[in-house]
Amino acid sequence: MVDLSGDFRLPADVYEKWYKQKHTAPELISKAIYGLTEFNREKIKKAKLVSNPGCYPTGAAFALAPLLSKGLVKSPIHLDSKSGWSGAGNQPKEYWDKADGYGKCMPYTLTGHKHIPEIERIFGEISGKKQIVSFAPMLLPVERGIITNAHAEMKGKASESELVGIYKEFYKGEQFIQVTSDVPNIKRVEFTNRVEVIVKVDERAKSVIAVSAIDNLMKGAAGQAVQNMNVMLGIDEREGLGLADKCAL
Amino acid sequence: MVDLSGDFRLPADVYEKWYKQKHTAPELISKAIYGLTEFNREKIKKAKLVSNPGCYPTGAAFALAPLLSKGLVKSPIHLDSKSGWSGAGNQPKEYWDKADGYGKCMPYTLTGHKHIPEIERIFGEISGKKQIVSFAPMLLPVERGIITNAHAEMKGKASESELVGIYKEFYKGEQFIQVTSDVPNIKRVEFTNRVEVIVKVDERAKSVIAVSAIDNLMKGAAGQAVQNMNVMLGIDEREGLGLADKCAL
Amino acid sequence: MVDLSGDFRLPADVYEKWYKQKHTAPELISKAIYGLTEFNREKIKKAKLVSNPGCYPTGAAFALAPLLSKGLVKSPIHLDSKSGWSGAGNQPKEYWDKADGYGKCMPYTLTGHKHIPEIERIFGEISGKKQIVSFAPMLLPVERGIITNAHAEMKGKASESELVGIYKEFYKGEQFIQVTSDVPNIKRVEFTNRVEVIVKVDERAKSVIAVSAIDNLMKGAAGQAVQNMNVMLGIDEREGLGLADKCAL
Amino acid sequence: MVDLSGDFRLPADVYEKWYKQKHTAPELISKAIYGLTEFNREKIKKAKLVSNPGCYPTGAAFALAPLLSKGLVKSPIHLDSKSGWSGAGNQPKEYWDKADGYGKCMPYTLTGHKHIPEIERIFGEISGKKQIVSFAPMLLPVERGIITNAHAEMKGKASESELVGIYKEFYKGEQFIQVTSDVPNIKRVEFTNRVEVIVKVDERAKSVIAVSAIDNLMKGAAGQAVQNMNVMLGIDEREGLGLADKCAL
Repeated sequence: MVDLSGDFRLPADVYEKWYKQKHTAPELISKAIYGLTEFNREKIKKAKLVSNPGCYPTGAAFALAPLLSKGLVKSPIHLDSKSGWSGAGNQPKEYWDKADGYGKCMPYTLTGHKHIPEIERIFGEISGKKQIVSFAPMLLPVERGIITNAHAEMKGKASESELVGIYKEFYKGEQFIQVTSDVPNIKRVEFTNRVEVIVKVDERAKSVIAVSAIDNLMKGAAGQAVQNMNVMLGIDEREGLGLADKCAL
Repeated sequence: MVDLSGDFRLPADVYEKWYKQKHTAPELISKAIYGLTEFNREKIKKAKLVSNPGCYPTGAAFALAPLLSKGLVKSPIHLDSKSGWSGAGNQPKEYWDKADGYGKCMPYTLTGHKHIPEIERIFGEISGKKQIVSFAPMLLPVERGIITNAHAEMKGKASESELVGIYKEFYKGEQFIQVTSDVPNIKRVEFTNRVEVIVKVDERAKSVIAVSAIDNLMKGAAGQAVQNMNVMLGIDEREGLGLADKCAL
Repeated sequence: MVDLSGDFRLPADVYEKWYKQKHTAPELISKAIYGLTEFNREKIKKAKLVSNPGCYPTGAAFALAPLLSKGLVKSPIHLDSKSGWSGAGNQPKEYWDKADGYGKCMPYTLTGHKHIPEIERIFGEISGKKQIVSFAPMLLPVERGIITNAHAEMKGKASESELVGIYKEFYKGEQFIQVTSDVPNIKRVEFTNRVEVIVKVDERAKSVIAVSAIDNLMKGAAGQAVQNMNVMLGIDEREGLGLADKCAL
Repeated sequence: MVDLSGDFRLPADVYEKWYKQKHTAPELISKAIYGLTEFNREKIKKAKLVSNPGCYPTGAAFALAPLLSKGLVKSPIHLDSKSGWSGAGNQPKEYWDKADGYGKCMPYTLTGHKHIPEIERIFGEISGKKQIVSFAPMLLPVERGIITNAHAEMKGKASESELVGIYKEFYKGEQFIQVTSDVPNIKRVEFTNRVEVIVKVDERAKSVIAVSAIDNLMKGAAGQAVQNMNVMLGIDEREGLGLADKCAL
């Protein structure tokens, strides 16, 4: 089973605090494997229950994982994520239907978004230590896609080319992940299961800016679920997913 | 009173047929003056009840009135009208909130739209004879504005410059109506009470194409209501409306 | 060879009149097969030179062909076509880069568009008689896609269900053409080689409104070129094209 | 004179380093008053030459000034700014005219943007000490408007309501600046000279997120220039600017 909800991504107590509701199947939580495929592939192969990641956590994880794994960034990490319209789900929302709703560009839930503990969990697992994030989501006037900017101070010193080397090594062999030399944009990943990532060093500010682009409905949701299903079934991870890549034309 | 609903724009029997509901105050219908200001100004001055026009009928009337008044077009008239998002009102609609809703370009209600009898009524009054229209509305992926294309065969023969002359004469002195030499677009009228109109002759097809652009929330609704109120109060028609014209900067 | 330009779609004299330039290879024109695949499949199989259709003519042909073939519409036919941004080609255009260019909704070239003779040629071939069209194109604020509304008076009388039957019969077995029961929209055909078509009867106006939706870069250009290439090579017409259909997911 | 270019906003050496060109009138730089009206009003009253601020620096200054003036944020400050299409000027740009350009959401110039020294200058003046910023701009698929998210760790501790109090006090009496309780969005400020600002505290991350919204063509450019002109002439600052506020309707 691949579960797309947020129900098995967090310990029961954390879930109940952030989602503000009682968990009705806490005994299943410890059996669920977090389905960020590239990070948990071996466990997913043997999993009975995969908990598919949230869209923002997916974008955040791919943007920063190589730096986190090397212990190269300080906490807190400032995440500035922008999502297309479809990120809000498919229920009618009142703010969309106002006359001034169309084309709205609007940050929202500037503190306390329920994806924060999920992001901190995966950041913690990758880095091997507790990580604190500040997270600001924003609605983009497009149908789909998420751009995640991760801003953080660096721990120690490394040049941009060293970091790019670390990213390329980290994602080596991953067919859905691409470290780019120009800035990622939504158009290039929409309708695909791909992730584009770039990392830049701002030496003056002793900081890094890492940017990822995903399609929230594909790698951020259904696409990643299919990828996980493929891993569970022992078949090619790309099965059913290459079809969607318009860049493959 | 200026009424913005569709309740007093049609005879009771026509209303009940097209709006599919019982009219609850039929005795008021004959007292209501149809509030297309430029065409009914003298009656509006003395009116107690003004029935403010629909957005599509407003766009259609300004596009074709000069030709109708001279008897220069044949029936049926083919209207192809495109409206921004806000034309659908401010109630949540399910089709907007689907993941594929954002940016949708979609013709709808290709036959039987309830604005048809209102358009035919005003076309009939201007031309002094019965007019039949075929009407195809479409949703545009913008917040506001209506572009109306009117296609019709010509009765008799006239050059484009003759028609332009007729339009300029017809709208002479009207401060909100502008006969343009380049094709109207929504950007130029949004947030204003203005109407832009162009008329073109296709000699090969013995047809005319007339195009108008309005802001459906201004000249197509609230702006025209304010204009009518000003006329009823005997004050400058532009009162409260010039403020909105960003072109006035 | 599949030629995507407008150079081999018209007789030399018509070309020179509408394109306003000398034709430099008139001897090739008569050898070129017009590449509207579904209408010329047998000729394309043996062709050395296929002249790939323009985007607007493609949309117009699929909207009206069944009616034209049965002689059910009167001339002139009023075409109201709306195209996304990419229809303008990939050269920088000044009107796009003005501050007010983004999101512009703008009819243009209301008379004399160079696609008119191409549309009349294919309409004439399908109907077996001379057809006259009036054509009004418009720019939509989307990346890609064309919606074509065809408005025409009917010759004789037929119910909507009869016309739908004629459309379904006409396009029977065509894998890229779909007669829909709800109004076509761009979202459903973008990135695909598919055409969606609907036909409606307006009995009051004794008129039909037929609407088609295509992706101008696919069925309206490169997709149809690939389809033609497949026919020329004697392989499955869908080769290289199914990949793009996001609805296939 | 109010100069809208970037020529008089920086010391000559800084200018030449970031703008990569020789300054041809360095003797005028020290005479120019930086035209962020609300911060330099007294000097502007007597100025002969006002150097109108850049659009991004304007958004950044209003988002953070109250915190900077109280010394409440640590350096580096992470700015994540999103600008509509018109921010790129009115020259044709190749990346806009590609088929995939329309609707593009794209971070760019992730390090080294030439507005950085201008932002640091004004941040330094407001805070009375050197400030370092990391700055990531992004293109939004809208015509106009800038959303600036400022992320920074706090110096010391303050509750959100204390910070809101500081913001309200700081901007007291300023007619164009509004501290909002819901998140600012572009729609509410477009075509106006207004600034909307909100400040939020993320206690877990010991950080603040401050957001401002401006119209880059108004408060971010021409509107602020008019405001400065009004100050120089000793007339009402709102002269010529109230007209543009569609919220005034």
